[in-house]
Formats: sequence, C-alpha cells, structure tokens
Amino acid sequence: MVIIGAGNTATVLGRKIRDGGHDILQVWSRNPAHADQLAKELKTSSEPSLRKLTKADIYIIAVPDDAISEIAGQVELHNHLVVHTAGSVSKNVLQDASRNFGVLYPLQSLRKEMPLVPEIPFLVDGNTSDDLTLIFDFAETISTRVVVANDEERKALHLSAVIVSNFSNHLYTLAEQYCNRTSTDFSLLYPLINEVARRIEFKSPSELQTGPAIRGDMETIHGHEELLKNFPEIKNLYANFTKSIQEYYNNRQ
Amino acid sequence: MVIIGAGNTATVLGRKIRDGGHDILQVWSRNPAHADQLAKELKTSSEPSLRKLTKADIYIIAVPDDAISEIAGQVELHNHLVVHTAGSVSKNVLQDASRNFGVLYPLQSLRKEMPLVPEIPFLVDGNTSDDLTLIFDFAETISTRVVVANDEERKALHLSAVIVSNFSNHLYTLAEQYCNRTSTDFSLLYPLINEVARRIEFKSPSELQTGPAIRGDMETIHGHEELLKNFPEIKNLYANFTKSIQEYYNNRQ
Repeated sequence: MVIIGAGNTATVLGRKIRDGGHDILQVWSRNPAHADQLAKELKTSSEPSLRKLTKADIYIIAVPDDAISEIAGQVELHNHLVVHTAGSVSKNVLQDASRNFGVLYPLQSLRKEMPLVPEIPFLVDGNTSDDLTLIFDFAETISTRVVVANDEERKALHLSAVIVSNFSNHLYTLAEQYCNRTSTDFSLLYPLINEVARRIEFKSPSELQTGPAIRGDMETIHGHEELLKNFPEIKNLYANFTKSIQEYYNNRQ
Repeated sequence: MVIIGAGNTATVLGRKIRDGGHDILQVWSRNPAHADQLAKELKTSSEPSLRKLTKADIYIIAVPDDAISEIAGQVELHNHLVVHTAGSVSKNVLQDASRNFGVLYPLQSLRKEMPLVPEIPFLVDGNTSDDLTLIFDFAETISTRVVVANDEERKALHLSAVIVSNFSNHLYTLAEQYCNRTSTDFSLLYPLINEVARRIEFKSPSELQTGPAIRGDMETIHGHEELLKNFPEIKNLYANFTKSIQEYYNNRQ
C-alpha cells in the first residue's frame, strides 16, 4: 500500500492497515513534515514527489475532499488500483489517475489523538467488478463490516453521518457551554449521552423519544425557555427541536 | 423502602435498590395492575391505598412531574423521609408530605425494557442536613456517582440532559427516517454514533467538532441541501445547525 495524505483519516487508516498485516511502502503528504511523522509511526518511508511513488497494490488517497481531484491529476498510476476515502465525492474524480479506481470510505469519525481505534464500517465501490472485488476483500482484512455502496448511497449515508455525529457533537458543545456558565458539571452527563447512543441498537430511536417536547409538557418547556433567556443561540435550537419533535410525532399519529 | 410509582423510573430504581441489598416493602401505583406487576418483579407486595403505606425508612415518589404534588398531599408520612425523583420539580413540593424530605434525581434516561441498567449519576438534595446525609448515603449504596445539587443546579442539569439526550435522539430518528427513504442502512451508523458519544470523555466536544459546517465547506453543504429538498423538516434543522455551528466557532476566534 501507498498512503497519500497524513491527516486524521490517513493516520487512523494507516494504523488499521498496519495492524491488518499489510506492508505500507510509502507515505506522501503536501506537508513533508507530516509525511515524515506518519511514515515514522508506520515504520516506513515518506516520498516527497507524487510522480515518483513506488509500485504498490493499492494507492489510498486520504486527503481533504477538494484536494482529491488535483492529486488524481498528478499521480501517474496507469492501471494500478487507486481509491479515495471521501463520503461525498464521486469515484469518477479518480478516472484521470488510473484505469482502475474505486472508493474505500470509512463511515466513522477518525481522530488520530484518540487512544482507541473505533469500529469502522467501510463503504466500498469500484470502477469495474474486479476493482470492486479487490477493494472489498482488502477492506475485509481491516474491518468486520464492509458493504458496497455507489456514489448516491454513499452520499446519503455521509449526510446521515453529518446529522448524527456533527450535529450531536454540537449539542454536546452547547450543553457543555451552558453547564460551564451555570457552574454545573458537564461530566455528570457522560453516562446519559452514552446510554442514548447505545440503546438505539436495541430499539428504533423513534420508539425511544422521551422528554417534555413529546409529552407536550408546556410547563417544563416554558421553564426551560426562561432558563435560556440569556442563551439566545441555545434557546433558538431548543425551540426548533421542540417544534420538530412535536410535528414528527403528531404526523405519525 | 416503599416505592410510589410503577413506570420506567420506579421500575429501574426498584431494580437498582433491590440489587443494592435493600428491602422493598411495598409498591404503590395509580394503576393497581402496574403496581402488582412491579411488586411481583421485586418480590414484594403492592398496596392499593396511599394512606395505608407501611412504615419505611425512605418513601420514593417516582411518578410523572405533575402528579408529585397531588401524591404529596395524600400520603401521611409525618416525619418519615420522602424523596421525589424529578429533575425540574422543586424539593419543596414535598413539604405537605413530611417534615423530612428531599430529592433523589437519576441523571439518566431510564427504560424498563432495556436489558442492561446503565450507570446512573444521582443528584441529591435534602430539606435538612440530616435528611441530605441520609439520602446521600443511601444513593451511594446504589451508584458510584452521587453529588449534591439544589433546585437551581438540578434544573440546569435537567435542561442540559434534555439537550444531549432528547435532541440527540431526535437527530438519530431523523437520520433513520432519511436512511429508510433512501434505502440505506441506518445500522451502519451505530459505531459512529457511539464513538462521538464516547470520546467527549477524553476531550471537550468543542475541540472535536468536524464536518462541512465548521470547515465552511459550502460545496458539501449545498450538496446536502439538494439531497434534502424532499425532506423539509430535516433541511430546516440542517440549516439551523449549520448556522449555529458557524456562529459558535466564529465568535470564539
């Protein structure tokens, strides 16, 4: 394997690939210091020129979305297999890089500073059925959950991922801000946050909704609005959620 | 102990209390069948009359918020210790029930059908320091995380709990709805949802925010708005979150 990129995705995938027993031959990054750092961690070497990459079974482009097409235009891989790792970028952006290309998208939020590598489902796609088979089989060596998804399916799941991860994390951030300003301890909420995330594996979240909005408990809702009078951003999201929850469940009845 | 109520909170607390080695003497519920069912599970008896409850060390009122004060007016407990379990109800609602009263609030979402009882932090309060000590010590026999919180602090944490649990769960619900309508598999998102919830114990969520909103990636945001054109409720929340995230991080810089 050759890894192109040295950010969070490149680093965490590099660790998974190394732990899967594969040889990582080179690391490239726009920033040579980052390439050196990741190469050192993965016990391999860095290569400063995209045009001088060594021969490999799979080239993995793990860079920001808007840099993929530029890199695809610079590497000269002929018919060697190349994949990108992006959720919302078409696989066809790689057609300038090689005749054999596809996607290896980790449906997970990857942060290199986290001590534990989480479970990572992979969505894979390939330009030909042979490419797809190679990518699928490779993904199965580093994950227990691999599914085929075309560009449309991958984009839909990426959008869902933004909703459940970026937006939930922002709710945690706002709650932490509110706790800090009211001198209450945000860490008391960790078990609750984990429980709500965990139990949807047992039952649909639509059957687990609780709280004042779904109960129509206007006394508590008005009390919360009063508490939020000096927090206009949180108050605004609170009102939007209360409305959205009430409309969702009224429409279902 | 005597448990007043037979819903989710009464049931899960009843199990914790039983597992903590305490004697549960009676269960009361407005619905006698529910009282019988919980009494059977806890291997105790039910009592149909609030005025005939047996003598106990602690009476635990675990009923809907708006029923607490009515029950407090009916029980005749003199100076026996009574607590309620509500996040946003003042402890003083119990002053008609006994001279000794307080709060035992589980900061957790409790569902009796879940196979595993989650970790439950308790916020406790008492009318006198002796009451508080008794409630605190009791809570420590059923939980490893007990903190004292007055009415204001408890209400603030309850509001934070609504934000991180009810609102996050609604995001999961909307994402599941979107997955169902686009024929993608919501269960692929479970590891991501768990990871985002888990890792805030290692780092503040405000330092873990990712996604197109914080990156200012307008191409992806417009792509998502296009995908959501037939999902007006989700599109509306998407726009509100994007705005809230961008304002939050712009104001911090």
